[in-house]
Amino acid sequence: MRSTLDFLLHDWLAVETLARRPRFAEHSRETFAAVLDTCERIARDKFAPANRIADQQEPHIASGPDGERVHLPEATGAALRAYIDAGMLAAAQDTALGGMQLPCTVEMAANAFFHKASIAIAGYALLTAGNANLLMAHGTPRQREVFAHAQFAGRWLGTMCLSEPQAGSSLGDITTRALPDGEGFEADPLGPRFRLFGHKMWISAGEHELADNIVHLVLAKIVQPDGGLLPGTRGISLFIVPKHRVDADGALSGERNDVVLAGLNHKLGYRGTTNTLLNFGEGRFTPGGAAGALGYLVGAPGEGLRCMFHMMNEARIGVGLGAAMLGMAGYEASLEYARTRPQGRPAQAKDPAQPQVPILRHADVRRMLLAQKAYCEGALALGLYCARLVDEQHTGDERAAREAGLLLEVLTPIAKSWPSEWCLEANSLAIQVHGGYGYTRDFPVEQYWRDNRLNMIHEGTHGIQALDLLGRKVLMDGGAALRLLGARVARTQQAAARQPSLAAPARQLNQAWQALESATAAAWHGAAPEAALANATPYLQAFGHVVLAWLWLDLARVCADPAASPSLTDAARAGKLAAMRYFYAYELPKADAWLLPVAAREAVCRELPDDAF
Amino acid sequence: MRSTLDFLLHDWLAVETLARRPRFAEHSRETFAAVLDTCERIARDKFAPANRIADQQEPHIASGPDGERVHLPEATGAALRAYIDAGMLAAAQDTALGGMQLPCTVEMAANAFFHKASIAIAGYALLTAGNANLLMAHGTPRQREVFAHAQFAGRWLGTMCLSEPQAGSSLGDITTRALPDGEGFEADPLGPRFRLFGHKMWISAGEHELADNIVHLVLAKIVQPDGGLLPGTRGISLFIVPKHRVDADGALSGERNDVVLAGLNHKLGYRGTTNTLLNFGEGRFTPGGAAGALGYLVGAPGEGLRCMFHMMNEARIGVGLGAAMLGMAGYEASLEYARTRPQGRPAQAKDPAQPQVPILRHADVRRMLLAQKAYCEGALALGLYCARLVDEQHTGDERAAREAGLLLEVLTPIAKSWPSEWCLEANSLAIQVHGGYGYTRDFPVEQYWRDNRLNMIHEGTHGIQALDLLGRKVLMDGGAALRLLGARVARTQQAAARQPSLAAPARQLNQAWQALESATAAAWHGAAPEAALANATPYLQAFGHVVLAWLWLDLARVCADPAASPSLTDAARAGKLAAMRYFYAYELPKADAWLLPVAAREAVCRELPDDAF
Repeated sequence: MRSTLDFLLHDWLAVETLARRPRFAEHSRETFAAVLDTCERIARDKFAPANRIADQQEPHIASGPDGERVHLPEATGAALRAYIDAGMLAAAQDTALGGMQLPCTVEMAANAFFHKASIAIAGYALLTAGNANLLMAHGTPRQREVFAHAQFAGRWLGTMCLSEPQAGSSLGDITTRALPDGEGFEADPLGPRFRLFGHKMWISAGEHELADNIVHLVLAKIVQPDGGLLPGTRGISLFIVPKHRVDADGALSGERNDVVLAGLNHKLGYRGTTNTLLNFGEGRFTPGGAAGALGYLVGAPGEGLRCMFHMMNEARIGVGLGAAMLGMAGYEASLEYARTRPQGRPAQAKDPAQPQVPILRHADVRRMLLAQKAYCEGALALGLYCARLVDEQHTGDERAAREAGLLLEVLTPIAKSWPSEWCLEANSLAIQVHGGYGYTRDFPVEQYWRDNRLNMIHEGTHGIQALDLLGRKVLMDGGAALRLLGARVARTQQAAARQPSLAAPARQLNQAWQALESATAAAWHGAAPEAALANATPYLQAFGHVVLAWLWLDLARVCADPAASPSLTDAARAGKLAAMRYFYAYELPKADAWLLPVAAREAVCRELPDDAF
Repeated sequence: MRSTLDFLLHDWLAVETLARRPRFAEHSRETFAAVLDTCERIARDKFAPANRIADQQEPHIASGPDGERVHLPEATGAALRAYIDAGMLAAAQDTALGGMQLPCTVEMAANAFFHKASIAIAGYALLTAGNANLLMAHGTPRQREVFAHAQFAGRWLGTMCLSEPQAGSSLGDITTRALPDGEGFEADPLGPRFRLFGHKMWISAGEHELADNIVHLVLAKIVQPDGGLLPGTRGISLFIVPKHRVDADGALSGERNDVVLAGLNHKLGYRGTTNTLLNFGEGRFTPGGAAGALGYLVGAPGEGLRCMFHMMNEARIGVGLGAAMLGMAGYEASLEYARTRPQGRPAQAKDPAQPQVPILRHADVRRMLLAQKAYCEGALALGLYCARLVDEQHTGDERAAREAGLLLEVLTPIAKSWPSEWCLEANSLAIQVHGGYGYTRDFPVEQYWRDNRLNMIHEGTHGIQALDLLGRKVLMDGGAALRLLGARVARTQQAAARQPSLAAPARQLNQAWQALESATAAAWHGAAPEAALANATPYLQAFGHVVLAWLWLDLARVCADPAASPSLTDAARAGKLAAMRYFYAYELPKADAWLLPVAAREAVCRELPDDAF
């Protein structure tokens, strides 16, 4: 995988050029390589060996002196500590804060090693970095100093508390209440002080003993003067709720805050990341009764969702990269198996006394491997392309930043959903290559498949991504994002068309893009939103395949020229060109099938009476 | 599901007419209904409650007085006992043997309830019935009396021992040896007596205490005069190897045979069916050393694979029905969840203070449910259609029997593979409908998904089915099977074309069939087998979708006429017509995408050098 990463980062995305910008001026290809080397090593030595342990020794509740604790295997803590010691929690932060000022592209590439080695353990780190980054963007100076810095240093870890049992995809329906904490509540140095009451669901890393404190970022609604809550999302505010109370300087006061572990979710996969139900303000730790969990307002009242979603693009790109890396782990495992497992003989062999051949010699096994390669390397390219856009958005010139922002809007639903769907399929193919062995827990591929199944669900389900894409992103600014993406696709297509070996896929891409544009127009032409959006998911699938076809052609354009792809051997170059060819022969044609019901506004699902299912 | 079964059995397949045939003359719609009622009840009361228990209390090894035993939860034994007491092991057998002389169609429909309630527990029964049926076809009268009858009565249970660690899909490479057991070995009343030595892998139900004995049917190679084994499949013979030795009358002699549990496989799903490694002839129970496991030859030497595969069509249809029923279980669970789980509001709703609606109201949830319905009811129809062909093959007139046999040849790879792939996808959609809850073990759908993943692997992998279809079945008898299927498709298509509401899908089906025929011809036109067969799997996928489109149109033809579908309410009829419409709008168009590389004989997977992956 390393040569693929080098190819993507340097030959394709030219990340070295970022070092010309002031923020990254201390960096060079060498410093980037040093970070990747370190992460590759820690992931291999600490994360990979712990991955099955974290799956089998699932988090469980044990009683402790200050209430219930969650017991995790030691290997999880040891792996996480190595990650923290490498400084990766603050990788993107200012050097003044102990950070590395790494570009997002390099940070995400480095984190890919951890996703691949143990996505469930990496979860603790990525949540913490996301939490602290959010506070850096929206917190007061004191909130950053107390809560973000402790997380960048790995002394405390963080969570995001959004969902409630009755409000998952529909966040406007949360009912966790926040009451001003008495007179002078606004004067607390840590921020306006509230008391929170409510139940939060699906809280990853919500309880553990991996660090001295846990910083919960909690969405809740401030109780209105009439005692009620504002309906919908405009009533949502954001609060910092530490597990252990802290004083104004960030020292632990020795008191538990009123946040109680109410249970663990027992999951299909991703088991190493403990997932909890938390109760806020039930009064377990407050002798005087249920006084509520102390929380400090972040940003303005009613701005909670906006603050939380500020980081959403990056979080969703991260989910997609995680899915891609789970796929890659399965690809590598099944390729290794196919090279070493003898079984059967070529179709043309007549003599059953001949020795068996490695299954890599069988055409269908090769198809399953090449499909995995096309899915997973394509998904990795997509994620890093988006990360590169994030860097452009933050450090590019005005026009480049604006364009990068637009492209991110339209590509993020794909960056999240496409790897979640197709690298899951890759994991299924990895099982299939292993035959019966892949179905056992003696091989790693069944765990990758279980772990990856989460990615279509969390951080916005597949259906939510589809509505976001067809219902908002392709319409925004009069279709500006879609047009800009079309221009980028056309640029690739025209460059490829000039190379005879790429002329055929270039034509195919052009047709596919036009079909996508037509279907977009047809879906919306004179339609009410509920009619246009009824087939948003097949639209998302088609859009994703067209985007991946574009990226693969762009990669092939670079690969086709050895001088432009010095990171690759000839064999690796041939492999990437074959993956492109695979994608155009086997995958891209599916887009037509998905677009048919979109363009026709097929209504059979909508119109069927409820009692006819 | 019951009304769907009644519709398929009576309105569509007219199973009542089978009662006019001598073998089924004691039967009637009422007797069939009584069997279905009983099985539905036992499955609901005994199997369904045990399904999660059998998953969580995975079989494990405990030491016992006569070697290692496998410990299973009590609920497994209780469920199985109820199945046996209902007489279902002998459902298809002569009444003279205590059987019911049920048609295969009704037997498989009745077993569908058990597949749905707990496929892993049903596994013990279906293996036993398969084993005993095979002995009825190929055993001597004494073998039938001793080994088959005890299994029909449920006193003993059975296994099939094919695979070895080095020989899974490639059975010709097995190395289990069989040596004649001394002078007079041919005179044993139980059959020619051999001593077996070897290792068998993936043996379901290979060790347990559910019955007094286990009858292993074992493939092995008879040692040649030169001391060697014949290469390939022609050297394979079939043996009965009981776990406990028996005398000529079938009484247990009190001695263990030399069959030793060498380990358990720990699986992703299907955990309730214990899956073992067995060692034959390692001498654990023979004080004088490794004298080998006593085995009795079934059929002629070298005929082992033919005997074993005699029942393969039915076994593969059974796998497909199991996959279909796992899908149906997920469909029912997710439909129930969608009806009762409130979340969000319709796209057109503006007021966030409105109450939330059940998620069944969301278009994408409806799409996921209708897709499941189309996959699972379609797969059930396919399985029962094939079972009906089995009845025709056994009890129809000469021409009908011959035609049924031909159709079975070409349809069996589809009946096995299509439900395994698409009802697995249905299970994934069932998880998705549940959101995060579906990813937890508090809901049943994650188990269905894990259980179903086996079905693309066992009883011939997906790739093996594909080679069987494109490499043998569509070519056999000069393409006779394919032509006959084409005639059946045309018959449905012409009948549907006469109904205005079905004219459009009828045209679509006609085009799809022609595309399939053209691709078949193009794949083979002047091609070497390895070139034609390189894309056998996408061919299998396309073929499957065309077959399902045909069956859905045929079901719709019946549904469209209330007089012809009295088993259904108006709502159920509308649901089935919608499932057909879904299939033609969203699914059938995918066939074109799969056929492109088939017709083009795309060689990218074959040609890529090994070091370029």
